[in-house]
Amino acid sequence: MKNNQFAIVSNNLKTKKLELEKLNFLDSDTEKIDKPCTLLKEFLLKAFLDTQSNAIKGQKISAILASEDEDALSYLDDNEPLSKIAFYNIALQLLGFQVGLDFEIDDSISKMKEWNLPIDKSKDPMSTDEVISAWYLLLNTHNKYGQTYIDYLASTGYFAQNYNKFDKPLIFNGKSMPVYDTNELIREVVYVESPQDTDFDGKLDLLKVEVLRPKESNKNQVPVLFTASPYNQGTNDYSGEKLTHEVNVPLKHKEPVQYKYDQIKFKDEKKALPAQRTVEGKTRKAEQTFDREASYTLNDYFLARGFAVVYSAGIGTKESDGLRTTGSPEETIATTSVIEWLAGNRTAFTNKVDNTEIKAWWSNGNIAMTGRSYLGTLQTAAATTGVEGLKTCISEAAISSWYDYYRDNGLVVAPGGFQGEDADVLAEETFSRKQEAGDYMKVKDQWLKQLKQITKYQDRETGNYNTFWDARNYLNNIKNIKADMIMVHGLNDWNVKPRNVENLWQALKKVPVEKKLFLHQGQHIYINAFQSIDFTDMMNLWLTNKLLGVENNANELIPDVTIQDNVKPETWNTYEDWANADENIEYCLGHDNSLTDVANDGQLSFNDHLDTNTFEKYTQNYTKWRKDLLTDQSAMQNNRLIFKTKPLTQDTIIDGKVDVKVKAASDQNFGMLSFMLVDYGTAKRLTETPQSIEYKRINEGFLWREDSLREFKLQKNTTDYKKITEGHINLQNRTNNYSVDDMEANTFYDVEMELQPTFYHLVKGHQIGLVVYATDFEMTNRGNQDVNYSIDLKESSIEIPIFEK
Amino acid sequence: MKNNQFAIVSNNLKTKKLELEKLNFLDSDTEKIDKPCTLLKEFLLKAFLDTQSNAIKGQKISAILASEDEDALSYLDDNEPLSKIAFYNIALQLLGFQVGLDFEIDDSISKMKEWNLPIDKSKDPMSTDEVISAWYLLLNTHNKYGQTYIDYLASTGYFAQNYNKFDKPLIFNGKSMPVYDTNELIREVVYVESPQDTDFDGKLDLLKVEVLRPKESNKNQVPVLFTASPYNQGTNDYSGEKLTHEVNVPLKHKEPVQYKYDQIKFKDEKKALPAQRTVEGKTRKAEQTFDREASYTLNDYFLARGFAVVYSAGIGTKESDGLRTTGSPEETIATTSVIEWLAGNRTAFTNKVDNTEIKAWWSNGNIAMTGRSYLGTLQTAAATTGVEGLKTCISEAAISSWYDYYRDNGLVVAPGGFQGEDADVLAEETFSRKQEAGDYMKVKDQWLKQLKQITKYQDRETGNYNTFWDARNYLNNIKNIKADMIMVHGLNDWNVKPRNVENLWQALKKVPVEKKLFLHQGQHIYINAFQSIDFTDMMNLWLTNKLLGVENNANELIPDVTIQDNVKPETWNTYEDWANADENIEYCLGHDNSLTDVANDGQLSFNDHLDTNTFEKYTQNYTKWRKDLLTDQSAMQNNRLIFKTKPLTQDTIIDGKVDVKVKAASDQNFGMLSFMLVDYGTAKRLTETPQSIEYKRINEGFLWREDSLREFKLQKNTTDYKKITEGHINLQNRTNNYSVDDMEANTFYDVEMELQPTFYHLVKGHQIGLVVYATDFEMTNRGNQDVNYSIDLKESSIEIPIFEK
Repeated sequence: MKNNQFAIVSNNLKTKKLELEKLNFLDSDTEKIDKPCTLLKEFLLKAFLDTQSNAIKGQKISAILASEDEDALSYLDDNEPLSKIAFYNIALQLLGFQVGLDFEIDDSISKMKEWNLPIDKSKDPMSTDEVISAWYLLLNTHNKYGQTYIDYLASTGYFAQNYNKFDKPLIFNGKSMPVYDTNELIREVVYVESPQDTDFDGKLDLLKVEVLRPKESNKNQVPVLFTASPYNQGTNDYSGEKLTHEVNVPLKHKEPVQYKYDQIKFKDEKKALPAQRTVEGKTRKAEQTFDREASYTLNDYFLARGFAVVYSAGIGTKESDGLRTTGSPEETIATTSVIEWLAGNRTAFTNKVDNTEIKAWWSNGNIAMTGRSYLGTLQTAAATTGVEGLKTCISEAAISSWYDYYRDNGLVVAPGGFQGEDADVLAEETFSRKQEAGDYMKVKDQWLKQLKQITKYQDRETGNYNTFWDARNYLNNIKNIKADMIMVHGLNDWNVKPRNVENLWQALKKVPVEKKLFLHQGQHIYINAFQSIDFTDMMNLWLTNKLLGVENNANELIPDVTIQDNVKPETWNTYEDWANADENIEYCLGHDNSLTDVANDGQLSFNDHLDTNTFEKYTQNYTKWRKDLLTDQSAMQNNRLIFKTKPLTQDTIIDGKVDVKVKAASDQNFGMLSFMLVDYGTAKRLTETPQSIEYKRINEGFLWREDSLREFKLQKNTTDYKKITEGHINLQNRTNNYSVDDMEANTFYDVEMELQPTFYHLVKGHQIGLVVYATDFEMTNRGNQDVNYSIDLKESSIEIPIFEK
Repeated sequence: MKNNQFAIVSNNLKTKKLELEKLNFLDSDTEKIDKPCTLLKEFLLKAFLDTQSNAIKGQKISAILASEDEDALSYLDDNEPLSKIAFYNIALQLLGFQVGLDFEIDDSISKMKEWNLPIDKSKDPMSTDEVISAWYLLLNTHNKYGQTYIDYLASTGYFAQNYNKFDKPLIFNGKSMPVYDTNELIREVVYVESPQDTDFDGKLDLLKVEVLRPKESNKNQVPVLFTASPYNQGTNDYSGEKLTHEVNVPLKHKEPVQYKYDQIKFKDEKKALPAQRTVEGKTRKAEQTFDREASYTLNDYFLARGFAVVYSAGIGTKESDGLRTTGSPEETIATTSVIEWLAGNRTAFTNKVDNTEIKAWWSNGNIAMTGRSYLGTLQTAAATTGVEGLKTCISEAAISSWYDYYRDNGLVVAPGGFQGEDADVLAEETFSRKQEAGDYMKVKDQWLKQLKQITKYQDRETGNYNTFWDARNYLNNIKNIKADMIMVHGLNDWNVKPRNVENLWQALKKVPVEKKLFLHQGQHIYINAFQSIDFTDMMNLWLTNKLLGVENNANELIPDVTIQDNVKPETWNTYEDWANADENIEYCLGHDNSLTDVANDGQLSFNDHLDTNTFEKYTQNYTKWRKDLLTDQSAMQNNRLIFKTKPLTQDTIIDGKVDVKVKAASDQNFGMLSFMLVDYGTAKRLTETPQSIEYKRINEGFLWREDSLREFKLQKNTTDYKKITEGHINLQNRTNNYSVDDMEANTFYDVEMELQPTFYHLVKGHQIGLVVYATDFEMTNRGNQDVNYSIDLKESSIEIPIFEK
């Protein structure tokens, strides 16, 4: 257990008292109490719910141990001076820690220090003001289950026992409190008229939007969290899988061609649009409702805190018009259309036929976007338009350029785990209009045509960057961003690879908005239910600032860059920047022996072909393939080169993009190379996925949606290596990814490329390995061709950016 | 997809109409409709919620395809004769099946037959009465997600759109409908005074009881589901694990002793009790509430249907008095105390100090119990007292005798997966009073003393049945049962082994109550969210009958014995009885070659000792051990004997208990034997655990608790064998499990025992295997002793009970 809390606001005693009054812990009576023990008992009585009798509260207080031999009730009733140790003995039990299991009585303060739980400054024994101050801090302290004590109290009904007694919104320590009754949420559907006709039916596309908002929004406008999720009206898993591409296909020579970027640049041609619908009536009352939405627990958390939450799946999804495009400008427009409606700048209707307009009259016009993966991607897409009303994005594991999702340096490179997927597959998977047969009938022909076009222009033949991909490259428009950006990404995310966030992070530096970056040790996951970091609290602080305009120091309290350590569990370090190291170490593959495996300055070769059995086995079992790829003696030993540094003489942190330069040849007139940087060294490493610590332990409000508490723990057993990063290149894309260079067999070419960016803590004694290979079973096409690759060691090297403290 | 629905009540047209009126599908207007299409459209309009506009409903109807080229809206508006195929095209889509994916349009009726979905008898085209009848049946038909269409409609808000419009309770097709607002549940705690003082503090034990009940129960009394769960106030996992017994200990010679049962029989001696508390006041208002309870989704389902749900953890749990005993009569009394309070026959208080009485004035006095494992066990325990008010039990994976949970024929035999656990460990694990330090302080000494006693009397030294275990054998009191019993058990449950339910089933035959048995292919699991069987509907039918007194044919519609087939997925067959086969096949280990592996009538031997490496490996990896045990050439080949029949010439079903007779010797003056019956044959078998088909797809009401739909599917790959059943015996318990027979080294003894009961479908061509061994790594002690066992083949045989159709 190690707590990392950033979102605690420092306040003076006066503010603390005022805020405790708003929470009903203090009032004119309690403020007169002059005995510290009496005051603490008063706080405890309130914590155990006003709706319960004093006898019950007494039972609960006496169940807490205050000292070796006295329970809290008798200790506090004795009214001796309140010792600091007794306060924290009690506090730890309130935070869910168990005497005898988690800590020993009277050992509370040292344990809190060990766990990094904040302790209020106070003398011993404590004064009443010190009790107030310590109680205030306790309410903002994370408990054993990764929630602040006040959030825990909320989940026991602290606010729900009488919602009317509290301000709405209620800001406590800079964050919005769950004072809204989630049983009374209004759930309504509207249809936003998007300024495009993507299904070519002669009418502007109407897009289904699901709104959840507190009933209080009928009186006072509220901020909005908008999640654009193409998945949330259902997916076509079966037909998507059927469309998945065969990847056991050979690599071929590509016809050389040199382009200037402008020749392949996407130019947005304004098409003639159908007329907007004539508004034939206006109403404030929606006509359609919905049941259980596909939700994100972070949104659920904010629903209890007075934020409206809006979901929309976009063009081509169930009950909407239009066709799917996989990330094209049309999808951006679909996304911004909803934001424009929420900000009062676009029309929505109550249904698809009557042309009765309905405004987002309950919205305060301040919108944030949330969500991960495709849902994060559409945030970046929307932000790059500078659309009015979008104040901030919390963009997690987002794609910044779809080429970086499905391709790499002139190669088809699948997102990890999704071999054979491509833009067309994803379009089919998310085209949920198909699930309504009566609707699909009307659009089927147009859809099949569209799908064919996507398949054609995504161009799996060459793997080159082209106009299709340029249209789906949001990096072209970062300069337009007006929203403050939170970016979250997994350093082990091989689905949406880290380049996506790094490019965005770098490009944003020139843009005058606030930006914050979180890099965690997960793969393609959410981090809002981690035990060791108060991510959810930080987002509360952030959105309370950005959407409610509360001055709470969010910009300063939330670090610019927060990176989870890959060696020590539960450790989150803060930095000023990422992937901007001044220092580099160069390792040469040959002549200076800095990569020790190699004894000479000559050439080394490997072949890319495997016997059929081994090949088949690897296609079924990537773990086995990766193990053989990275292990010295294995079935792969003639199919790759491994170079290793000498054991590191000190802990070393790689910060950013490793640059690889090789002089390489193929014995064919085509070829590809893959590079994997590896941490060789026996160690207990973090689990690949976070472990569930407490199933459904987190309640996002009171008897509301639940989440399971998670954390990365050290694996039970040691492992001998871990992949750090990787990269792939088509040897005919040496110049760039949209031109094709010539290539002849058995000719050496200089190839230079950057691996995916990382931030990796290498432990002293470990070795850095560089593995050079061709076919990547998990990501590249797998022709199993008899191709020999040679590397000229003297002319080959890697440059590793090093973080200097 | 294969549907097995038992809980559909046959009604005549008049009843159907009356019931559809209560559901608001029919009224004086709709009953006048004389066009079948118009009537069906009317039903559809109502299905899509009255609260939505006609435009929205029209959108939704037109999203359904009625024929190859016409959507449902235009089809129905045309008002041509309504074809049966169009009706079922529409019906299947309403049930969540997708055109093009699950079925082709106009292929609906044959698909429904294939999936075993009920089709109403009607002519083609359909009359209005036939539309009524078919709609009625459709509402009761399971959809793609294992719920009836009316339950699905409820989850979209059908009843919630206006709860006031519906009767409460509302019975439809014999089952209670979810017409209660789960947002308005009353949650209150009371303390029942149990007639015992198990913590010896001089006061009767007060037991915390959590009540959830619909607000309507303030006006009209409701039936109650009571779940007695020792786990639901928390568990001491860490200290439980610390207490877990070392199992790598040697087997020893036991001093021979012969008892008559009466000598070890438990005699319940009435102790002098403290006086009952003097009632000092009476109230109808509870003083304590609670937040998220540890719930069971079947209970959640019934909360939406107007049943109250009550949880109590019993003596020694958090906020209750008393000490844990692991299944002794004291725990039975703790359980029945709550039932007595619910039936008006025992006192409860609002808190632990004021002596203010609170009655269960909102209870109709009809109580059912629910829950699995320990929770099921306490049902059996309570039922054997004949306690008034307990009308029925739905007892799942329940222990009927604790000796059968922790012991077998004079051996310590762990519940599968829990090596080293015993009665004392479970007592410690469930002693959640420990979690409140202020309370624990007061009872700690008493508890440590109690724990020591349990450790002593459970007697791991001999493994014999004794008075301790006889006190925990509910089979002694089956004759007292007055409650109708539903029993559910997994045929692959090696935690609570099948003997527990079989003994109960057989003993109940003489008791004049209704009894129903469900045997599934799972391990230790719940079956209320399976796709292929309407278990939840049946329980609804059952409880609506037993607790609300509705005459709905529940006793007849629910089969006496329902057994899931282990070969064909989604197949549930019904039988009159279980483990009562007339036919037996005897296989002799030697002389007649019926177990083919053996060529002679002599003796075969094996040794129980393994080299340290292998031993260590097996202690860490039971799967590996089991594989080696059952595979011909393996590291275990000298450590067990495998006998196999010739391939079966026809499909064969084992029904009940296999009897094993062996003449065996050990080269020591002690010994144990284990027997495993195995299905040898290469086949795709069912997955060991049910697979999640749709995550959280089942909503137990409207925006209420959710469950994931599950099903056993065939495994992707074939396997070569599957364990059918097993048994273990101490060679010194040849006479019975409470006496100790003498034993000398190298002397042959006749040993006879029954393996755990089963119901197993063996496929033609497979072989029955009998594996004879000693140490069971997963269950017995593991001394790794150098003991040689010999079997005299001529005098050894097994007798297999065969189910004859």
